[in-house]
Formats: sequence, C-alpha cells, structure tokens
Amino acid sequence: MSDSSRVVQENRDYTLFSWSVQNQLQPIHMTGGRGSHFFDGDGNTWLDFSAQLINLNIGHQHPQVLEAIKRQVDQLCFAGPSFATEPRGQLGRKLAEVTGLAKSFFTLGGAEANENAMKIARLYTGRDKIITRYRSYHGATMGAMTASGDPRRWPVEPGIPGIVRVFDPYCYRCPFGKTPDSCGRECVTHIEEVIQMEGPHSIAAIMVEGITGSNGLLVPPDDYYPRLRALCDKYGILLIDDEVMSGFGRTGTWLATQHYGIKPDIVTCAKGLTSGYMPLGAVIVSEDIAQFFESHMLFGGLTYSGHPVSCAAAVANLAVYEQENVFAHVLELGEHLAARLEAMRARYACVGDVRCKGLFSVLELVRDKASKEPLAPFNGSSPEMGLLAGHLKSRHLYAFSRFNMLWVCPPLVITREELDHGLNVIEEALARVDQALLPQTAATL
Amino acid sequence: MSDSSRVVQENRDYTLFSWSVQNQLQPIHMTGGRGSHFFDGDGNTWLDFSAQLINLNIGHQHPQVLEAIKRQVDQLCFAGPSFATEPRGQLGRKLAEVTGLAKSFFTLGGAEANENAMKIARLYTGRDKIITRYRSYHGATMGAMTASGDPRRWPVEPGIPGIVRVFDPYCYRCPFGKTPDSCGRECVTHIEEVIQMEGPHSIAAIMVEGITGSNGLLVPPDDYYPRLRALCDKYGILLIDDEVMSGFGRTGTWLATQHYGIKPDIVTCAKGLTSGYMPLGAVIVSEDIAQFFESHMLFGGLTYSGHPVSCAAAVANLAVYEQENVFAHVLELGEHLAARLEAMRARYACVGDVRCKGLFSVLELVRDKASKEPLAPFNGSSPEMGLLAGHLKSRHLYAFSRFNMLWVCPPLVITREELDHGLNVIEEALARVDQALLPQTAATL
Ligand SMILES: Cc1ncc(COP(=O)(O)O)c(C=O)c1O
Ligand SMILES: Cc1ncc(COP(=O)(O)O)c(C=O)c1O
Repeated sequence: MSDSSRVVQENRDYTLFSWSVQNQLQPIHMTGGRGSHFFDGDGNTWLDFSAQLINLNIGHQHPQVLEAIKRQVDQLCFAGPSFATEPRGQLGRKLAEVTGLAKSFFTLGGAEANENAMKIARLYTGRDKIITRYRSYHGATMGAMTASGDPRRWPVEPGIPGIVRVFDPYCYRCPFGKTPDSCGRECVTHIEEVIQMEGPHSIAAIMVEGITGSNGLLVPPDDYYPRLRALCDKYGILLIDDEVMSGFGRTGTWLATQHYGIKPDIVTCAKGLTSGYMPLGAVIVSEDIAQFFESHMLFGGLTYSGHPVSCAAAVANLAVYEQENVFAHVLELGEHLAARLEAMRARYACVGDVRCKGLFSVLELVRDKASKEPLAPFNGSSPEMGLLAGHLKSRHLYAFSRFNMLWVCPPLVITREELDHGLNVIEEALARVDQALLPQTAATL
Repeated sequence: MSDSSRVVQENRDYTLFSWSVQNQLQPIHMTGGRGSHFFDGDGNTWLDFSAQLINLNIGHQHPQVLEAIKRQVDQLCFAGPSFATEPRGQLGRKLAEVTGLAKSFFTLGGAEANENAMKIARLYTGRDKIITRYRSYHGATMGAMTASGDPRRWPVEPGIPGIVRVFDPYCYRCPFGKTPDSCGRECVTHIEEVIQMEGPHSIAAIMVEGITGSNGLLVPPDDYYPRLRALCDKYGILLIDDEVMSGFGRTGTWLATQHYGIKPDIVTCAKGLTSGYMPLGAVIVSEDIAQFFESHMLFGGLTYSGHPVSCAAAVANLAVYEQENVFAHVLELGEHLAARLEAMRARYACVGDVRCKGLFSVLELVRDKASKEPLAPFNGSSPEMGLLAGHLKSRHLYAFSRFNMLWVCPPLVITREELDHGLNVIEEALARVDQALLPQTAATL
C-alpha cells in the first residue's frame, strides 16, 4: 500500500465523515497547499474553487498567518476563558472597529456562535421566539440546526421550541410569484404579517445569513435590508446577521450587509475570521447589548472561549486582508466573475440563473430555461449533476455542488488567470450537461 | 497605564466573559506558563490547582506538544472535513486503541461532542428520549445544555424535547436517604423504574459523565457502572459516557469508566484530549454503530471537523501521557492526595465530605458536620466561600470553587511538592473558615 492509501485507509477505518454515508466515501488525502491550490497524496495539484468549505479566504498556507500562530504557540498556547490575554483583547478591538459593534464573545465555530447569539437575544429582550428563513443554514448543534431551514434539520426534529420560519428573497423562484422590478417586496412584507400573527412582543430576533450561502446564494434586492432593519426597529426586534459564510471579504466588505448600509444588532462569524487556520467563531454585539451584560449574567460559555492561538490566528488573518488589499481585489475580480457567469447563462441551456456578489457566487442549473425545472430536485441529486461534478473532479477542480447548484467561491487571493482557468473547466462541464440534456434522436435510441 | 493593565482593559472593553456579570470581573492577564504554574502580567507566578478548566492535563507549555503543533502548521494548517489527513487518521486509530471502540467523529469541544453523540444515538436506535442525570453538565449549546441537569440550563429553558432526568450516585447526600453499604443501589434501580414509566422502546440512550465533574465530583459505588451497563443491555439502550472532564488520565485511566470494567457504546471527550493546546472534541462509537453509518447517512458536521492541527496536537498530547507514564504518576499521587483530603475532613469542622479519584477531587464544605448544612446554598454563594476563595487568590493558588465545593484538580504532571504546597494553602483557608464559623462570643459582638 502506498503511504497515501494507508492514510486514506486509516481515515476511513477509524474516523467518521460528516454528512455522509460512510461506504460511499472516496476521501482525497490532502498533503499540503499554497494559495489557491492544494496537493493530494497522488501528486496532483487541485485548484480550490470553494476555498475548502468557503472559509479559506486567504488561501492555503499563508506564511504570515503561520508565523503568527507559531509565535503565539511559543508564548502562551492556552488560557482558560476567564483570563485576559493579549490576542483576545486585540481581536476584540479589531472586530469592534470593522463591524461598528461593541464587544465579542468567542466561540469555536459558526454553530456555537449562532447558539450564543440566540441565547443573548433571548436574555436581552426577555422574549422567546426567533424568526429565521427557510433557505438557511446556521449550524448543526440543536439550537442552530432548528434555526436552519435546511433539510439537514429534518432527521433531528423536533428541535428547540420558538423558531418561526419565513420565506427568502429568492427572486429567481419568488415564493410570491413576483419579479423584483414590479413586486411589493413581499419577501419583507410577509415577515411583518408573520410578526403580527406571532405577537410582536414575543419575538426576540430575526436571524438571517448576510447573504444566504449553502442554500442557494440568494443575493437580496438592494432595499431588502433597509426594509428589514426598519421592520426590526418598528417592533423592537433584534437583527442577528449570520456572516459566517458571507463575511470577511467574501463579498468585498467585512460584512455582506455593509453593502446595504445597515447595522445589525448582533453579528455572528467564523470561517473567514481565521480562514480556517485555527478554529474560531465569534458573536459580536451592539453597545446596548454589551451594556446590558454589564449588570446581567451572560449565561453562556465553553472551555475554549477566547483560545489565545485562535485569536492570534484571526488577528494575523485580518491583517492580511488589509495589508494585501484583499477586499479591493475581490470587488474588482468579482466584476469579472459576474460578467463571465452572465455569459455562461446566455450561452448554456442548463444555466437558469447566476448570482454573484464579490467572489461569492453560484450557478443554478435547470433542465429547461423556460420551465426552470431544476437539474436535480430539492434535497436530491441527478445523473446530470453527477456528470458535472465528475468532470470537474477529473480536471482537478475542487468545487462545491448541491442539489441543482454549483458554487464558485475560490480563495479571495485567487488571480485572474487561476479564476479564468477554473471557469473554463466549468464551461467544459456545462457543455457536456447541455449535450446530455439534448432530446435523444431516434438514431441514438 | 502598564502594558498589562492595557491588556486587561482591552479584554474588558471589547470582549465578553462567559458565565459572568461583566462589571464584576477582575480578569487576570496571563502571559505564559510552565508545567503546573502560570504567570500574570504583574510578575506573579500562580500554582494552577484546577488545570485551567480541568483540561490542561499535561500542564502549561509542554515543549513536545508545542513542537508537534508547529510542525503541523508548517505542513498543512487546514483541510476541510471531507479530506483525509495524516494526523486525523493517526488520532482515530489511537482513540480506538485506548477506548476499545471503533471510530471517532471530531468536533471542537465537549458541547458539540455531546450534541453529536445524542444525534448518533437517535439515528442509530430510531428512538428519541435521552436519560441524563440532574447533577451533570454536558455543555452549553442547546442540546447539550438541556441534557445537563446543571442550573445553568434554567435561563434558556424550555430546551429540546426528549430529555428525561434521573438522580445521581451522590452518596454523601443520597437522594434516597440511604448509605452505600446498606442501600439497594436505588441510584440505579430508580432508573429502571423511570425507563418503565417512559417506555423502554422510546429511550435511545442514557448519557452520564464518567465521573460527574463540575456538579460535585460524584464518585459512584464500584458496582454502579456494571449495574447501569446491565440495565442498558436489558432494554437495548445505549450508554453514552461523557469523559470530557473525567477522561484522559484525570483519574489515572483513559476513561473513568475503565475503573469499573465496563465499556460504553459511545464516549465523548474534549479537554484532556489535547490538554487545551488546540480546540478539539470527539465522539467515539462502537463497532456496531460505526457499521450502521456505513450504509446510513451521518447527519452531522461542522466546518472544523478533523482540523489537522487539532488532531496533531492531540496525537502529541496522548504520546506525552504514555512516554512520561503520566497515568501511573496520577494513580500514585492520587493516593497521597486522597489521604491528605481525608485528613482535612478529620481535622476541619467545615469539611463535610471529600471525594477523590486520581487527581480528580473535591472538598464539600458545610456549616456543620452533623446537619450537613452546605457552606453555600445550591446555585449560590456565601461570605464564607468568598473568604476561602479570597485566601487562595491572595496566595496565588488558582482553584475552582462553586456553591459549597472546592475542587483540587491540578495538571496531572504536578509534583508531590507542588501538590503539598497547594494543599497547605488550602488548609490555611479551611482554618480561617472554621474560625469564621465559630459561634461568636459576647466579647466579639
Ligand atoms: C451561514 C452559516 N452559518 C453557520 C454555519 C455553521 O458553522 P460551523 O460549521 O463552523 O459550525 C455555516 C457553515 O457552513 C454557515 O454557512
Ligand atoms: C463533563 C463535561 N461535558 C461537557 C463539557 C462541555 O465542554 P466544552 O466546554 O468544551 O463545550 C464540559 C465542560 O466543562 C464538561 O465538564
């Protein structure tokens, strides 16, 4: 057995893989990486078109962050959550600066950040219900999972009480049968009706992904957030902005909601906060909420809250964003990406819609542009989606696809040439899908 | 402002501290550590008598683990959870070896480990209810928090459905009014009655801390676990053993339940798995459960599952346990600790009970040995407990106290001299408490 097959076998024999039927797995052995590429145990170099789980924003093995981690490890590798440490304070200050909010509570990942955000909203408002959206994912612990609309919650229902779900700003398939230029923003107005039916006094928060990621990359109309913010203010409801996936430069700003000129009461983040180099999540709260907990108990905690090495990795990662002008690069390259995706939509029969903000983008695939019949059903797959994924894999392009969608979310430091190369591979695959969808002629039967 | 007061101020101004009213905080600035000691920003050296949060088993800044972390950081700092990596496979294999179970699913902390254990138990059995104990803490995410009996769950109730709570093997205050030598092990038999009342077919698992930690360090009678295991087997109920705090050498064995010759179906762990050097938790499942997920979807996941650096830190940490014969040291020093605690119980009026297994121990303090009236009420504090904690702090002994209890849980590598020094300081404090409890004479009034 090669050294690499031994590693794969050991991983298969002794560890469980998430969201998988284990006997269907063919894990790739990752041995290293650099920038937008990673290497496998068979000597292949892959172009990473999903920045791992849309979290490795600064790309693989950035020397500056590696150095910062090693320095902190030598200095102080662990301190309990009740201690003050240098990197924890630095990171808290930086997060206040870039979000315009006040204080951070540190968790380990996105799920725990959302758990604590909901808890904080309930403690602060004294209200119980949380409004969330159907097409959303907030994490897999019980509170975050129930808050998610994603079908991954089905097998563990019933979840926690108090979650109320509403529809999404999904203009391509508007749940209200409208189009963005002529609608009355029913995606917001129906939330007000839900608030009234549930009782405004009972609703602690509306929790939304800044821009919905793994449930379809739903870029809202420009006035969606100002309207949602106004609704929250009208009823004294907190706005929790889950920026776990859409934050930290993914769309070219610190928070996706900053494109729309509004300020949430609570921001949750993880992923791009450290670019994955160390596990870390955070809940960042407004001055009013921070003041409340000056004199009220914060009922939340975890052994690794404020882990010094995780905080140091985040500080270094945020510095890379600034020093390398990463967000300006994202905005510029994002326009190029949007134009190329738009061209694909025009060119390939199977591309029903494309949605893009910065380097956060998706292609939504259909059997037919007119009927919009999805290329794979909701919560399912199809031979054509398998064909697509298979082609990308054969060309060592690592990309994330789910249901009838294909995400293009490379590391933010990807070059134009690398991006174009990957997009060309995707075009090859789309052409094959179009071919497969052609009505079969008598001759081929 | 000194450099250190600046760090403390920045931590206070920009970050939230867990389980606290923020304006009551006086966080210590930790600057470094070595073995059983850590250093603060004012130049003091503290003896760490609670191994931070009872997790820093190998002590502060162990060079071998620091090196392993830095090596992995240089090699490959992040891979998504669907990838095979060398440290992930190594750690999975090692955990199977030391627990006698089959496969590990990696999380980030104890809460997420327990969330996933419950999910796995429900998916595997097709049953819904989980039996847990009142005096228990399983973590702060919604599922783990509801599973906990700890009052920290009160402010976020109602939690998840399906949790049924039973009483503990708390012999000093037996909930059944018995004593261990003459009782009928009602702490187990009443669980069978609960099972019958709830419907055995509806119960997926019994989840217990190997030895209850932060809710009183309840060492069970020797036949408790064999009886509990038999009960589980009788009804096809899984036994989930939360070894987050009691595992990895804390009691001188890999798992606390190994003292009692039984094997759980699922083990959860965190804390001592890496000694805190990197965030990591794990759910380790039996061969039967692992087999089930060969052909069934594992509905669980998180971005940082199997983080390469966390896994590498764990591998190195486990190697230290073995190479330095840490567990033998724990068993030996644990006898000395037990003897000294026993002597304190005999000597000080305020020491009602002492419980100890390895270097996992607690003193339970009372106003009066006969009535057993606690020195502070359940879920409360008292001037006398404040006096105790204040004295330890003034002598730079860092120890964990809660309600009417004081834990003695130093790093496992502590020397006999260091241990004795800390215990002497505790004796000074106990003498003061005894003094404060003396009936005040007319002269002092
Ligand atoms: C928007 C969003 N929120 C929360 C999470 C959960 O984060 P984690 O996997 O770190 O728990 C994710 C993960 O994909 C996410 O995309
Ligand atoms: C027995 C037990 N289980 C679970 C947990 C939760 O672990 P974490 O703080 O890593 O979420 C703890 C933490 O103290 C614990 O003691």
